Amino acid sequence: MKIAVISIGDELLKGTIENKNLAIIGKELKKMGIVPSLQMTIKDSKDDIIECLDYLNENFDIIISTGGLGPTDDDLTVKTFADYYGIKLYENRDVIKHIQNILNQKNKPISRYNLTQAIVPEGCTIIDNPNGTAPGVFFEYKNQKIFLLPGPPYEMQPMISNHIIPYIKSNYDYNKTYFNSAYAVNFPESEIQRTVTEKIKPPENISVAYRAYNGVCEITFSSNSKKFTDEYFVKFKKLMGNYLLAENYTNLVEETISLLKKHNLTLSTAESCTAGMIGSKITDISGVSSIYKGGIISYSNEIKEHILGVKNSTLEKHGAVSRECAEEMVKCICSKFSTDAGISVTGIAGPDGGTEEKPVGLVYIAVKLYDHIVIEKCNFIGNRNRVRQRVRGN
Amino acid sequence: MKIAVISIGDELLKGTIENKNLAIIGKELKKMGIVPSLQMTIKDSKDDIIECLDYLNENFDIIISTGGLGPTDDDLTVKTFADYYGIKLYENRDVIKHIQNILNQKNKPISRYNLTQAIVPEGCTIIDNPNGTAPGVFFEYKNQKIFLLPGPPYEMQPMISNHIIPYIKSNYDYNKTYFNSAYAVNFPESEIQRTVTEKIKPPENISVAYRAYNGVCEITFSSNSKKFTDEYFVKFKKLMGNYLLAENYTNLVEETISLLKKHNLTLSTAESCTAGMIGSKITDISGVSSIYKGGIISYSNEIKEHILGVKNSTLEKHGAVSRECAEEMVKCICSKFSTDAGISVTGIAGPDGGTEEKPVGLVYIAVKLYDHIVIEKCNFIGNRNRVRQRVRGN
Repeated sequence: MKIAVISIGDELLKGTIENKNLAIIGKELKKMGIVPSLQMTIKDSKDDIIECLDYLNENFDIIISTGGLGPTDDDLTVKTFADYYGIKLYENRDVIKHIQNILNQKNKPISRYNLTQAIVPEGCTIIDNPNGTAPGVFFEYKNQKIFLLPGPPYEMQPMISNHIIPYIKSNYDYNKTYFNSAYAVNFPESEIQRTVTEKIKPPENISVAYRAYNGVCEITFSSNSKKFTDEYFVKFKKLMGNYLLAENYTNLVEETISLLKKHNLTLSTAESCTAGMIGSKITDISGVSSIYKGGIISYSNEIKEHILGVKNSTLEKHGAVSRECAEEMVKCICSKFSTDAGISVTGIAGPDGGTEEKPVGLVYIAVKLYDHIVIEKCNFIGNRNRVRQRVRGN
Repeated sequence: MKIAVISIGDELLKGTIENKNLAIIGKELKKMGIVPSLQMTIKDSKDDIIECLDYLNENFDIIISTGGLGPTDDDLTVKTFADYYGIKLYENRDVIKHIQNILNQKNKPISRYNLTQAIVPEGCTIIDNPNGTAPGVFFEYKNQKIFLLPGPPYEMQPMISNHIIPYIKSNYDYNKTYFNSAYAVNFPESEIQRTVTEKIKPPENISVAYRAYNGVCEITFSSNSKKFTDEYFVKFKKLMGNYLLAENYTNLVEETISLLKKHNLTLSTAESCTAGMIGSKITDISGVSSIYKGGIISYSNEIKEHILGVKNSTLEKHGAVSRECAEEMVKCICSKFSTDAGISVTGIAGPDGGTEEKPVGLVYIAVKLYDHIVIEKCNFIGNRNRVRQRVRGN
């Protein structure tokens, strides 16, 4: 089955916003063993939409388009698609009611521009949008199924999970792709490839994909046979042994939190250069309040000393970016917050503040569990943003 | 001038990662008054790359491709492009040296797979990659300029800013687009459109684009004439008056930080449900250490009470998610951290913890400057992720 994703919006091409929708759609489809064949980002322009549809033509079973459903003149998606496929438009009363409800909820006035969102192709199916005024639109043309969804990810996502995925599941008998992924640490991508090629020689019908990022290498085996994929995956895991992260690894944070929960251990954080990125990342996971108590963002030395409790002599002698300071930070936070475990970070994110001895990218990360402390010295390459991201781990 | 961006990588279509490169490229080009015409995301597949190049054909002056330059078998970009354009490949000695240097720096072994990254098209120009082993590749075919760049954003970005942008600037005499953007608050997108259409009637050659997000509406006027764009922008600003954010507004955080810096005011944060998102956002901006001292992540009530200093009676009587608690949090953080200004957040991000009286999405945000405190009660719609994002403001 061939699926094309179209992202419509000048703001994507101008770089005003990142396209988050492809990743959301891709992730949902992958769970079903499908990978979209292609994605195109085009402008809010009638000509560009037509050119894109000409190209996709009848080669795709499903077209999922996002964006261009807003109430303003630059939103052309529904009208252009309907014109292209020769379908008339009409004003849908249920959608008008929906728009009125949503705007009432938000205490906003209704104008004739809002009502343009109720103009939809004849015979289409409306997909409810609980998070906004623009309805999703679904229609068929010959053997092609076409979905027009709003651009904001939080409006689009529920439509994908609640409508489009179930629709595909129950209407298509497709050739599923089976994926098995493993995650290796301290083992370079190219070395893993060498090992795989030399030792287990996956046959032609198994694809192996490698992706190295932030010190973790993701290796994915896939094929149309579950048995085959599983077999080679078992071989691979035997081969790599201790270099692989846990079986159901999704990311290091989730892994860590689930271990802490399992052992009923509490956690706190003391952050300097990351200034809340670690705390924020931990609390991305819901239900973490049973183990994460909170932390101190000690961005200035004053706070490191007077609030967190790092000794003045440590700051004077070794500086804030030092093994000694990281160690004291993690000890202080665990004792202050009465937690079993703690994480501290202190470093130079740049662009300023680097010296020859302590360059931009130098970061000390300390982790404490009971009386055991591990301190890692890292030298990250890249700009401020990149250094901070490397510490956070994505 | 027509520019196409190609993003190559299974991981983008499978949703393993978001495509950050288009936004980076788009932003850099926009500064020069250029918007890419089209972006396509395709798999690491020879056939798919060929199909894409067939489609782009000679309609584009510049093709910028990212991804598929890694050292493993699934990285096919350079070879497939060279084959397509009938250009032979060779091993470039300078690139070999570069790869050796980078791997030495990272204390990693070199294998023959790494050296595949030194195989490049004959006659191409190598674009240095200070942040990784894969070189960028630039070559021409007829009137088309083709750039092949690595996928990781921190490797690609410097190549765009330091090589491709200057190249375009000095080699093309293109028709520049002039953009003027304004940001309106408390004025719905559809109402702004109505006002613009009725009151200043922009002529055909001025495009007006609207984008509403998180309570701010961005309105962008653009045309090929600076004079025209400026003229209509002045009219628009007069029309909207106080509803517009500051002239050089880029985002609320930068705006706030620059105001604080200007008046030499210090800032601290006390975060509950956002658990560091605000601190992290503030410190995305470099040079903020002169005014931001840090904060307390008081994720649990225990920390709110014993570390931050919220009265037990407030928590008992009003609960942690209340106007009273937000107020005390901001007072406590300013006093504890001795800052002129403070921000506090307490709310229910969900999915659990909501009640009829205090539903998921209920968030209190308090802002204090000297003795003046403003507390905002918000009811955000959406899931955990969305609620937290709304608080952070992007």
